[in-house]
Amino acid sequence: MVKLIKSKGIAHHSYFIEVSGRAVVVDPRRDVDVYLHLAESSEMDITHIFETHRNEDYVIGSLELACATGAEIFHGKNLDFAYGTPVSDRDKFQWGSIELEVMDTPGHTTESISLVLRDLSVSKDAQMVFTGDVIFAGETGRVDLYGPDKSQKMAGLLYDSIFNGILPLGDQVILCPAHGAGSVCGADIREQDYTTIGYERNTNPQLQCTSKEEFIKMKVAEELYTPPYFKKMEFYNQNGAPIAGRIPYFKPIPPKILKEKINNGACILDVRKPTSFAGAHIPGSLNIWRDGVPAFAGWFLNYDDPIIVVDDQIQGLDEVRQALFRLGFDNIYGYLEGGFPSWYLHAGQINSIKLWSVHQLKQKLESLKEKGEGLTENRKKFKETSEEDFFLLDVRKIDDRRKDYIQGSHHIYVGDLPQRIQEVPHDIPVVVYCDSGYKSTTACSYLKKNGYTKLSTVLGSMTAWKKASYPVVKA
Amino acid sequence: MVKLIKSKGIAHHSYFIEVSGRAVVVDPRRDVDVYLHLAESSEMDITHIFETHRNEDYVIGSLELACATGAEIFHGKNLDFAYGTPVSDRDKFQWGSIELEVMDTPGHTTESISLVLRDLSVSKDAQMVFTGDVIFAGETGRVDLYGPDKSQKMAGLLYDSIFNGILPLGDQVILCPAHGAGSVCGADIREQDYTTIGYERNTNPQLQCTSKEEFIKMKVAEELYTPPYFKKMEFYNQNGAPIAGRIPYFKPIPPKILKEKINNGACILDVRKPTSFAGAHIPGSLNIWRDGVPAFAGWFLNYDDPIIVVDDQIQGLDEVRQALFRLGFDNIYGYLEGGFPSWYLHAGQINSIKLWSVHQLKQKLESLKEKGEGLTENRKKFKETSEEDFFLLDVRKIDDRRKDYIQGSHHIYVGDLPQRIQEVPHDIPVVVYCDSGYKSTTACSYLKKNGYTKLSTVLGSMTAWKKASYPVVKA
Amino acid sequence: MVKLIKSKGIAHHSYFIEVSGRAVVVDPRRDVDVYLHLAESSEMDITHIFETHRNEDYVIGSLELACATGAEIFHGKNLDFAYGTPVSDRDKFQWGSIELEVMDTPGHTTESISLVLRDLSVSKDAQMVFTGDVIFAGETGRVDLYGPDKSQKMAGLLYDSIFNGILPLGDQVILCPAHGAGSVCGADIREQDYTTIGYERNTNPQLQCTSKEEFIKMKVAEELYTPPYFKKMEFYNQNGAPIAGRIPYFKPIPPKILKEKINNGACILDVRKPTSFAGAHIPGSLNIWRDGVPAFAGWFLNYDDPIIVVDDQIQGLDEVRQALFRLGFDNIYGYLEGGFPSWYLHAGQINSIKLWSVHQLKQKLESLKEKGEGLTENRKKFKETSEEDFFLLDVRKIDDRRKDYIQGSHHIYVGDLPQRIQEVPHDIPVVVYCDSGYKSTTACSYLKKNGYTKLSTVLGSMTAWKKASYPVVKA
Amino acid sequence: MVKLIKSKGIAHHSYFIEVSGRAVVVDPRRDVDVYLHLAESSEMDITHIFETHRNEDYVIGSLELACATGAEIFHGKNLDFAYGTPVSDRDKFQWGSIELEVMDTPGHTTESISLVLRDLSVSKDAQMVFTGDVIFAGETGRVDLYGPDKSQKMAGLLYDSIFNGILPLGDQVILCPAHGAGSVCGADIREQDYTTIGYERNTNPQLQCTSKEEFIKMKVAEELYTPPYFKKMEFYNQNGAPIAGRIPYFKPIPPKILKEKINNGACILDVRKPTSFAGAHIPGSLNIWRDGVPAFAGWFLNYDDPIIVVDDQIQGLDEVRQALFRLGFDNIYGYLEGGFPSWYLHAGQINSIKLWSVHQLKQKLESLKEKGEGLTENRKKFKETSEEDFFLLDVRKIDDRRKDYIQGSHHIYVGDLPQRIQEVPHDIPVVVYCDSGYKSTTACSYLKKNGYTKLSTVLGSMTAWKKASYPVVKA
Repeated sequence: MVKLIKSKGIAHHSYFIEVSGRAVVVDPRRDVDVYLHLAESSEMDITHIFETHRNEDYVIGSLELACATGAEIFHGKNLDFAYGTPVSDRDKFQWGSIELEVMDTPGHTTESISLVLRDLSVSKDAQMVFTGDVIFAGETGRVDLYGPDKSQKMAGLLYDSIFNGILPLGDQVILCPAHGAGSVCGADIREQDYTTIGYERNTNPQLQCTSKEEFIKMKVAEELYTPPYFKKMEFYNQNGAPIAGRIPYFKPIPPKILKEKINNGACILDVRKPTSFAGAHIPGSLNIWRDGVPAFAGWFLNYDDPIIVVDDQIQGLDEVRQALFRLGFDNIYGYLEGGFPSWYLHAGQINSIKLWSVHQLKQKLESLKEKGEGLTENRKKFKETSEEDFFLLDVRKIDDRRKDYIQGSHHIYVGDLPQRIQEVPHDIPVVVYCDSGYKSTTACSYLKKNGYTKLSTVLGSMTAWKKASYPVVKA
Repeated sequence: MVKLIKSKGIAHHSYFIEVSGRAVVVDPRRDVDVYLHLAESSEMDITHIFETHRNEDYVIGSLELACATGAEIFHGKNLDFAYGTPVSDRDKFQWGSIELEVMDTPGHTTESISLVLRDLSVSKDAQMVFTGDVIFAGETGRVDLYGPDKSQKMAGLLYDSIFNGILPLGDQVILCPAHGAGSVCGADIREQDYTTIGYERNTNPQLQCTSKEEFIKMKVAEELYTPPYFKKMEFYNQNGAPIAGRIPYFKPIPPKILKEKINNGACILDVRKPTSFAGAHIPGSLNIWRDGVPAFAGWFLNYDDPIIVVDDQIQGLDEVRQALFRLGFDNIYGYLEGGFPSWYLHAGQINSIKLWSVHQLKQKLESLKEKGEGLTENRKKFKETSEEDFFLLDVRKIDDRRKDYIQGSHHIYVGDLPQRIQEVPHDIPVVVYCDSGYKSTTACSYLKKNGYTKLSTVLGSMTAWKKASYPVVKA
Repeated sequence: MVKLIKSKGIAHHSYFIEVSGRAVVVDPRRDVDVYLHLAESSEMDITHIFETHRNEDYVIGSLELACATGAEIFHGKNLDFAYGTPVSDRDKFQWGSIELEVMDTPGHTTESISLVLRDLSVSKDAQMVFTGDVIFAGETGRVDLYGPDKSQKMAGLLYDSIFNGILPLGDQVILCPAHGAGSVCGADIREQDYTTIGYERNTNPQLQCTSKEEFIKMKVAEELYTPPYFKKMEFYNQNGAPIAGRIPYFKPIPPKILKEKINNGACILDVRKPTSFAGAHIPGSLNIWRDGVPAFAGWFLNYDDPIIVVDDQIQGLDEVRQALFRLGFDNIYGYLEGGFPSWYLHAGQINSIKLWSVHQLKQKLESLKEKGEGLTENRKKFKETSEEDFFLLDVRKIDDRRKDYIQGSHHIYVGDLPQRIQEVPHDIPVVVYCDSGYKSTTACSYLKKNGYTKLSTVLGSMTAWKKASYPVVKA
Repeated sequence: MVKLIKSKGIAHHSYFIEVSGRAVVVDPRRDVDVYLHLAESSEMDITHIFETHRNEDYVIGSLELACATGAEIFHGKNLDFAYGTPVSDRDKFQWGSIELEVMDTPGHTTESISLVLRDLSVSKDAQMVFTGDVIFAGETGRVDLYGPDKSQKMAGLLYDSIFNGILPLGDQVILCPAHGAGSVCGADIREQDYTTIGYERNTNPQLQCTSKEEFIKMKVAEELYTPPYFKKMEFYNQNGAPIAGRIPYFKPIPPKILKEKINNGACILDVRKPTSFAGAHIPGSLNIWRDGVPAFAGWFLNYDDPIIVVDDQIQGLDEVRQALFRLGFDNIYGYLEGGFPSWYLHAGQINSIKLWSVHQLKQKLESLKEKGEGLTENRKKFKETSEEDFFLLDVRKIDDRRKDYIQGSHHIYVGDLPQRIQEVPHDIPVVVYCDSGYKSTTACSYLKKNGYTKLSTVLGSMTAWKKASYPVVKA
């Protein structure tokens, strides 16, 4: 029996494989209790841990799990890990009738391996394959992690791994990748827990290339983001992350202490929804809505300043702690006791940003147009424009921007704001949109923290804008 | 072993008493699974259910529990219940060495009983007493439920029940009342799970009276609120509420269907916090923050129109459903699928109300004062006042109002708004405050639903106002 | 997303399919809370329920679930169901981009359907197929339910359904059958949650036939058991089982009351392990070890006499209750309070049966052989044999018996004992073995209940016998 | 709010006290997750940990909890602890209106303290008192831990602590002791979670003494057992036990490996019920039924040899692990994979002991009597007695033995068997009884392990014997 353990947010898939009274874990996450509980409830001893590759988007839990269970860790031999045992192409592990065969499948990283599962009591046919970040439902792994000059080479390796390694295993094989929809490790992974080699061969857009050259060209052209925290993950996952034991205690911080902590450089992470954050928030706080923490914390937080989380209530805070723990943010200090309401009940100062509906945005844009002034992307012209003018900022991914956008908007990906903030003017109001109104509120909070005062976030953003059938500029 | 089962919001305490291989439940709530699970995990058969009185603030679960277990229901003989078995003063039940003695303790209601628990293998001394709504930690039961003309008589009965019935049981007795802090069944119940007769005799403010007359005078003078849903509860609890089986299914409603439902008269209950609701909400929706639902739903909802709940997310919705179920609102239709965000992502129209900090309120009031205009409670003068004037509305409980208030404010208890809405002017902005900013937002939502447009709610309200050391008018 | 819900014991697989904000359930079990919780936690409204066929081995939960949610029920049109809506071959349901197509796949039953899932946003290729009891991992559905004279015809239909219906969907399709390993609905289903058409086409022994004739011959030759409770299930599943609301309350029964109940005809179901039951048990009780209840209760229990369960402790009793509920045994009365120990603590009479290890069995057989007497299968010869002789009874499945057995043993399948008990002699000791010592203890308990006195069960039975390398007679 | 956390088996009561946004824990157990979860769910920071005394019966979790939370540890100043902060009589801690006052209450140990809780916003009256092992429901603390020569002095101290310290706090005070019924720290504690000073003053048998002398005499006369593991606990609790992080992983051990481990000195702890163990068990295993582990493991296990647990199934094993962890047995190695059945399925050798009902015992005794032989306690006479004679061993507590016993039995407390085993004859059968048949099976397993072969355990023992109205010898 194979159990898929999904980690929300980072869209990470790990696997707990039961074989003849023992368990093998593939790519464990850092909060390993889930595997320990599975081991206990199924009476299995975890004896082997496989890492399909050195992950860059989260802290791998191999050491943590090995430390708790005594299991051995295995990974590809093409990287010099500070722990674990290297395995080679065609190495086989067998327990009872179950065989797990290592297959070198470089491309995403140089040491990537896949694991082929067979039940020899049934057949020599492969039953499942654990592909790590090589191939996903509807996608293949990114090849840009070693920098642009290596992408071409990596894409070639990936082509070989897939076309000469994975696909020949047969259409009948169930394919178990290391990520699901929403991961930063593939551009456009489909929401589908299990797929098969046959289904991917037929339908995966990236497998429809007619030549290796075409595949390489396509992969090299991909534009994917690399959040700054990847560096830390790569270091941790090559050298071993600190052992935690249990997930760190999460301290409630009274409002009074919070004020002191802010003065001493703490980072206030407000995880409420755009409507709540916009309505009122603690001055200087950064907003990343709760479900966005796994994807965006790594863009804005650092590993040194104490992090204090603010939410409306305690429910759900555990997810935030878990998310930060998975990204190695062991500098979580605590959370605002009583939630945001306790801040204003203690007469704390509050800030707000404006919430615009798409209908309001439409109206403002039209009213400008009627006056013959129009919104302009050209920063230089602002000084000459009317008081009603504003800077419309699009913070979506470049891929989405390329498809369509609202006329007159300027594009900076939300994660790139720290690097490109000087492109945003200070002297006129800034109105931010994204896909839904979430990332745009994150952007607003970052701008507010950095001195911008007249800010609006567009609720519903492009999704609502299109639902309302308002016009877009198509690429 | 006695287990206290607390129901949040209605601050209801019920008890699961284990006696010699069987269980007795005192005042079960309507969602009875908690008792069934206790029975199972402790291997007890629930055979007896006692109602200390006909409750008026929630649907009693006796019939539901009897229906699931076959247990027998008992209550005081001085009311003509449509089900169950009447018991009389001094009736005794004994299982093994445990004795439960009925004691008539009228005053809160005429048929109220208390139950005295003794372990005869230890002593004839009383060990615990289950007092229903007769006496609480720091309080005694309200005596106004039969109307003002009966209060005096009921207060006299209550005095006798307490001073001649309960207190003589001895200081050593652990006192188990039917409500904790926050209940509408006592004015000012203390936060304390278990207390004793001795501790109450020494410290309960209401037990310090030096004569029966003084006690009666004090009780008659109490001003307590009686929400309209009490009528339904009284009817249900005397005649038997409908049997539910399991808590009703809670349907996710897509935004499109929600729009239709609104047009057909559905009640939209938005349970988000003041900041979220104020930021943006569905036009026409009523706001009662999640934890306020048990206490305020019964003031504003009716038992006919389908209720649809709106929250930010699904977490916590279960509590809302439970709360409504406990109050007999079986007309829950469902909840907005995807939470409030799905509304704006589908380009739904949104309303907002203004959020004021106490600092802003202070500033506005001072700026008016400087202009020599001042805020006035006198509605007639409004037409003559400046454009900056506003109507400051205090929606706290009358007891709190009596203690202190912000100068220039007009008082209407939030629950009385439906009856007294005509006191609120339409032509100038209305700024609402309460203790914290929660009830004031409920009030704003009610006013908005009823055509008022310029509304502000004061975040933190009196709590923050006092923290900031701003001036109040003392009574 | 498709979620597999496994029901232990009956090895039943049902599926919760999330499609565009709604949920579709395939073959729900009777205790439907699992689907309701999934619906709630994933914010899905359950709107459609499909039955792949009229199940014969458990009570289908369609009506129960429909009653809780308002969902509509669908099933194949070739049987006259008293509820639900018939669907026809090639009927299509579409929600968002997800399509579910009905495919008539008779063979196991005449009205069996399969459901083909496609994601049209990806491709017209089938992604998954829900095959009910048509095809399993390593098996195909049984064809003997309409009696031996219909088996040939049903086998032919099954062949067509598989070879002309399912297999042509493509090797890439993930196959989701209604049963896993251990089910009575297929002879030898493999332990594998998900398989694919390709994998089955290559490896499923029953799909390796070279002609329809060969397939039919093979299927008709299968010898499968049909427990008597199937009749009740078929009646319930065609006409609708009683609606339960919640799983029935399970009453603890004190030893004293238990004695009375036994006298009034209650059935005492002892679910302890062979060692415990053999050591001491209540006279007249039937032993089916806890995990065996789903498979064997239907052979020995009836739907009229109250059932009282005896275990060592309360842990795990819930599973027993669930199992009986799934099989429609609503005549569960309760369980022995305090477990079996409370019986002997109350000085209840106890019986025991002997526990033999395989080593003891071997020794006894050899000692007989040395005396030149030997064990004999021939009942007639018993009278002439020595005092040390015994009747060695093999209660395994006929399939297992066919492979090998211990010399001198007589075979009656455990489930057939009620019909063939007269084959077991009363005058000499009876020693029973099976695969492991579990079914043999069930058999002993049945024999004891029916007046046999000298009984032994062989711990470990054939499994241990072979581990110890003792000789068997091969078929 | 005060939450009582009960630890089954050791009958340990610890308390989680919520005070103004922080939590104080009194006498935490070693598996501290329960406190961490309470802290999280109630949004409390655990800042203070109090130890009422150096416990001798379990590993205190103070260091473990302090390590996880950063809380400070406090204990009485009259012992030189290697960690924490000493507090003195009358030291006060105040948070908000809640005061916790230290009261030196020596007697059980020299450094014992009690903690008096007051809510100063209500009154200066004490509300609750945490008494550690000074006074319990129906009992007072044992005074024999420093040896017989110190008992008199300790009893005098205890008298003063109770009569001059605790009782004067007032009858109204809720009394929160550190142990409930079943603890080894008081002879005969009553089953009652909360009691009051008034109720104890009136009903506690030990508080009815008329003079200090009488009290001392009574206490000194108490005969209580001191299991050998107390030494380890005292060492750990004075010097600090090892920090564990999470409860140790519990490894499933296949039968084959188990055999090896036995050969290498592992201790096989079989936690099944008497019926199961008696029916069949692994040669050399020690039986302590699951719920008996907390009380009896410390008599028979050592801290060096690896411990392997055998049960019928995995359910409930977690409790065993927890129990051993609480007693500091960090040498738990694992548990038999698949439970006891996997042992015999692998053809492992098995032993058994005889199960006698009380009716069988009665019969055997009578049959002896009829023959004029009778059972004798006098070992010397055995050789002269008939073959049917047997040695009847009573392994109950000395207190119970003193009340009544079965004629002809010899008494050795189960825990004293290792010291007094030479009193048990080898040449005739040994029949063991206790209160219920549990401790007697433990005794049998110990005797079997030590070479005795003809052993019987009496199911139901004295409890059933009396239920059956068989004669006893009264003291």
